[in-house]
Amino acid sequence: MKIDNIDLSSYPNSEKIYVTGSRPDIRVGMRMIHQYPTVKIEDGKRVEYPNEDIVVYDTSGPYTDPDIKTDINAGLPRIRESWVAERDDTEVLDDITSQYGRERRDNPELDAIRFPVFHKPRRAKQGRCVTQMHYARKGIITPEMEYVAIRENLDNEARGIKSHITPEFVRDEVAAGRAIIAANINHPEAEPMIIGKAFSCKLNTNIGNSALSSGIEEEVAKAVWSFYWGGDTIMDLSTGDNIHETREWIIRNCPVPMGTVPIYQALEKVNGDVKKLSWEIYRDTLIEQCEQGVDYFTIHAGVLREHADLVADRLTGCVSRGGSIMTQWCVLHDQESFLYTHFDEICEILAQYDVAISLGDGMRPGSTHDANDRAQFLELDVLGELTEKAWAHDVQVIVEGPGHVPMHKIPANMERQVKACHDAPFYTLGPLTTDIAPGYDHITSAIGAAIISALGTAMICYVTPKEHLSLPTLNDVRDGVITYKIAAHAADLAKGFPGATVRDDALSKARYDFRWKDQFNLSLDPARAKEYYLQSRREAPDADDRFCTMCGPNFCAMRISQNIAESCDQCH
Amino acid sequence: MKIDNIDLSSYPNSEKIYVTGSRPDIRVGMRMIHQYPTVKIEDGKRVEYPNEDIVVYDTSGPYTDPDIKTDINAGLPRIRESWVAERDDTEVLDDITSQYGRERRDNPELDAIRFPVFHKPRRAKQGRCVTQMHYARKGIITPEMEYVAIRENLDNEARGIKSHITPEFVRDEVAAGRAIIAANINHPEAEPMIIGKAFSCKLNTNIGNSALSSGIEEEVAKAVWSFYWGGDTIMDLSTGDNIHETREWIIRNCPVPMGTVPIYQALEKVNGDVKKLSWEIYRDTLIEQCEQGVDYFTIHAGVLREHADLVADRLTGCVSRGGSIMTQWCVLHDQESFLYTHFDEICEILAQYDVAISLGDGMRPGSTHDANDRAQFLELDVLGELTEKAWAHDVQVIVEGPGHVPMHKIPANMERQVKACHDAPFYTLGPLTTDIAPGYDHITSAIGAAIISALGTAMICYVTPKEHLSLPTLNDVRDGVITYKIAAHAADLAKGFPGATVRDDALSKARYDFRWKDQFNLSLDPARAKEYYLQSRREAPDADDRFCTMCGPNFCAMRISQNIAESCDQCH
Repeated sequence: MKIDNIDLSSYPNSEKIYVTGSRPDIRVGMRMIHQYPTVKIEDGKRVEYPNEDIVVYDTSGPYTDPDIKTDINAGLPRIRESWVAERDDTEVLDDITSQYGRERRDNPELDAIRFPVFHKPRRAKQGRCVTQMHYARKGIITPEMEYVAIRENLDNEARGIKSHITPEFVRDEVAAGRAIIAANINHPEAEPMIIGKAFSCKLNTNIGNSALSSGIEEEVAKAVWSFYWGGDTIMDLSTGDNIHETREWIIRNCPVPMGTVPIYQALEKVNGDVKKLSWEIYRDTLIEQCEQGVDYFTIHAGVLREHADLVADRLTGCVSRGGSIMTQWCVLHDQESFLYTHFDEICEILAQYDVAISLGDGMRPGSTHDANDRAQFLELDVLGELTEKAWAHDVQVIVEGPGHVPMHKIPANMERQVKACHDAPFYTLGPLTTDIAPGYDHITSAIGAAIISALGTAMICYVTPKEHLSLPTLNDVRDGVITYKIAAHAADLAKGFPGATVRDDALSKARYDFRWKDQFNLSLDPARAKEYYLQSRREAPDADDRFCTMCGPNFCAMRISQNIAESCDQCH
Repeated sequence: MKIDNIDLSSYPNSEKIYVTGSRPDIRVGMRMIHQYPTVKIEDGKRVEYPNEDIVVYDTSGPYTDPDIKTDINAGLPRIRESWVAERDDTEVLDDITSQYGRERRDNPELDAIRFPVFHKPRRAKQGRCVTQMHYARKGIITPEMEYVAIRENLDNEARGIKSHITPEFVRDEVAAGRAIIAANINHPEAEPMIIGKAFSCKLNTNIGNSALSSGIEEEVAKAVWSFYWGGDTIMDLSTGDNIHETREWIIRNCPVPMGTVPIYQALEKVNGDVKKLSWEIYRDTLIEQCEQGVDYFTIHAGVLREHADLVADRLTGCVSRGGSIMTQWCVLHDQESFLYTHFDEICEILAQYDVAISLGDGMRPGSTHDANDRAQFLELDVLGELTEKAWAHDVQVIVEGPGHVPMHKIPANMERQVKACHDAPFYTLGPLTTDIAPGYDHITSAIGAAIISALGTAMICYVTPKEHLSLPTLNDVRDGVITYKIAAHAADLAKGFPGATVRDDALSKARYDFRWKDQFNLSLDPARAKEYYLQSRREAPDADDRFCTMCGPNFCAMRISQNIAESCDQCH
């Protein structure tokens, strides 16, 4: 398999660097952006003042490391394998546990699309819990915790920026359930990252084929594209054919935590017949995916039988696929949801692989009309109850949120989640702040996402321009990721996150200095910034152009302003 | 001249309607969107339930009226001419007053680019004030006031939605200075609209050529494109050649209020030499533009000589063109700004034509670093002082605002403006909530624009994806306008503006009913929504497709949810 159409060289003047921790195998990748000097004319002479390098958070993993030759057919380096092994609380299994997983592996018709390398799965030894929360509660600082502490700090220490984030702080936040490190022991390719309100705001991207479109190559390409532009985690929401094989390809090539919604695959296994869903099929699906290396599962365990009626009263009913499936199951069987009744058993399974739970919001509002309604808030209360259950098993939890919420109702939603769910990290889709702009829902939702993350939401799930209309293309993924990087970063600025202003200030200084190339290189999407600039200039940017394209040479406010500054300097 | 490349038929199933006021010549244009029925299968039979028409605010003027044949070379119908004339407080002048205006008119070299029709300008009779504020303070309800009251209410009354907006309320808000109706007596083509926090949030678009690009045709095309997509006002920021002629073409074809920054043209008249600027040149420019029909002037009268030093301390100095020009003028002449010293005279001129003042924020922050700093807030205090001066002349005022402001500093900025400027409407550019995304600044700024308008900003100035990089193309104008329609509407929802939820609810219901065509037609950009949808479907939407493209036929949450609702209905 080959990934086409992805240009992995769109970050000019950048260098992949690694910051090493307390042991040589803790090497945290970051991107360092080099800048050109500021040029001034002083006493008729050209004088250059150097500008410092800017270090930024990097989700692209080995794909941007010139020293690593990535090969989609081999998968990424397994950097966490030794950390997991040395804890000596897991064992390598002789075979896949899941019945379905074995069937897929043994089906010769799938040889052509199967990922070429097989890694035997690992599982906790009998009676052991292997979650980061478990270690944290025992006071242990794992390499993963140290890794994320380094990662969150970038070069703050070198700049003299004070930060609250230490390995001890990371451990304490994970122990308290206020943050998670989603890191399945069977996904050692992933670089540890942390989701919690005391940390930088993260963004998730969704990919996945449906019966109507998309093949494996396309999904892997979208995944790589997502890592490249800044997706912190990725969810594979495939509902079409070959879910198992698609997932394997993605995980083995995935440097970020990967999530799924197991009920989707369970439903595929019963050919879309909700009535035939059962705990047994779901359980086998969980194990299948735990052993493949999925880092977190969306589980709609808060959708209860008694909630089914509330759906009928809404303007847009239930818009969560998982939620609607489970509601229908409850109605058809006139039974309580097996996700709810078997929740402890689910936690027991997940604790053996360190898979985190993302408590699905099956009752999230699908329209601004339905925001903050009874169905949504009743479910949120159930999610709070389930959070405590999961924590009793040392299973890490995040809680999913809306959806569509007008701006004035966002604070109440955030406050309710904090209270109901005991400070477990909130992970929201948008929210979209109006329903009237299909085709632009990355924007309607970025407004809500920025507001809710400034209020404490730990991770935001991106929305692409194609939301409600179609599946995203590669360029939609790029637009969605950059839009959500904007929302997340705007929230980090608002939260006063340590070091968050460094890149803004550097880019603004570059702009003021007419260092066009630095302005591009420091931006979230250098290629697009340069492309737009060149549309007016029709030539390559010249570092000495002392005016901007908007105003032309005679009218540039920045140039005039600099002249004033210079003349003022001369006066004083 | 001909306008190409604009498809004026992108609103399918829409009808131009007019609501008539207390007299037959008050006819307020609106757009009515017809919907398809909801189709249900009941007892095996197909039953249709009709869906109501949705009436939306319409800025497109005669361009979308099939009964009016617009001709760029003739200009639009002059709907307000009789209202102005019947007040009998103005006179038609024999000739243009401005010296420069006459020179341009008499220059045969300009014949080829001059707008073909000449209308003699109108001015207040000696000693009369002809502003909407003046009438309002005298207790008069003008046709313009009644027009905007009807316009803001859409079909609220027919729907039983209570609204605070009556002609009396409009009059009182204008009298108090909390709202303005920018309506130059020489721009009778414009349809009255109101800017104030008690009304729906408005958006301004900027067009204008610079020395580097753009001709007259292109600017007029951008203007029409802006009206079409929803721009409530438009500013011509041209700084290149033929400013006078370009402006005439735009105004004569402009159904919305049009603003300019007269200092730009004044500077062109002295060939870009700031030192040569003078009150006399500026004054002649004001009169030239008053008589062409400009509805509001950005005047950077709050930039004082003593502020020049503050610029030198900033990260990005002064990024306002007008502000930097005036600062430089003050430094070069070592004198106070003539805009400040002649402010009363400016008001006297403007009162004769009813041109509103948009007090320019010459010290707006050009980076998040400089937000809410001393330079910005000191200027805001001066703008408050000038607001009161203008009001003493019954001249209408709005106050311009930033710029770049991180989210957590937006409320303080808004509060300061309200306090310093005595509730005069705030008109902000964005603000951009981060500096790191050139190429996506329509989004960085839409976040700030939505937040600040929910807090009470009356009008937001759009930012296109090309901000900081290049001049916008037609499609950038479309992206910018739609993005700002989103921000403005999200704010209207948050403010609880009467009737604001009608369109959201209708679109959400259409989505839930799988009425794809209605979902497109009710959206801000039907063409784009449909285009994206078809990218997956490869065929025209079929009203009976009971699933969405994201999930495919087996997985559609909405379909499952409907099945539940139906089965619940059957159970009960």
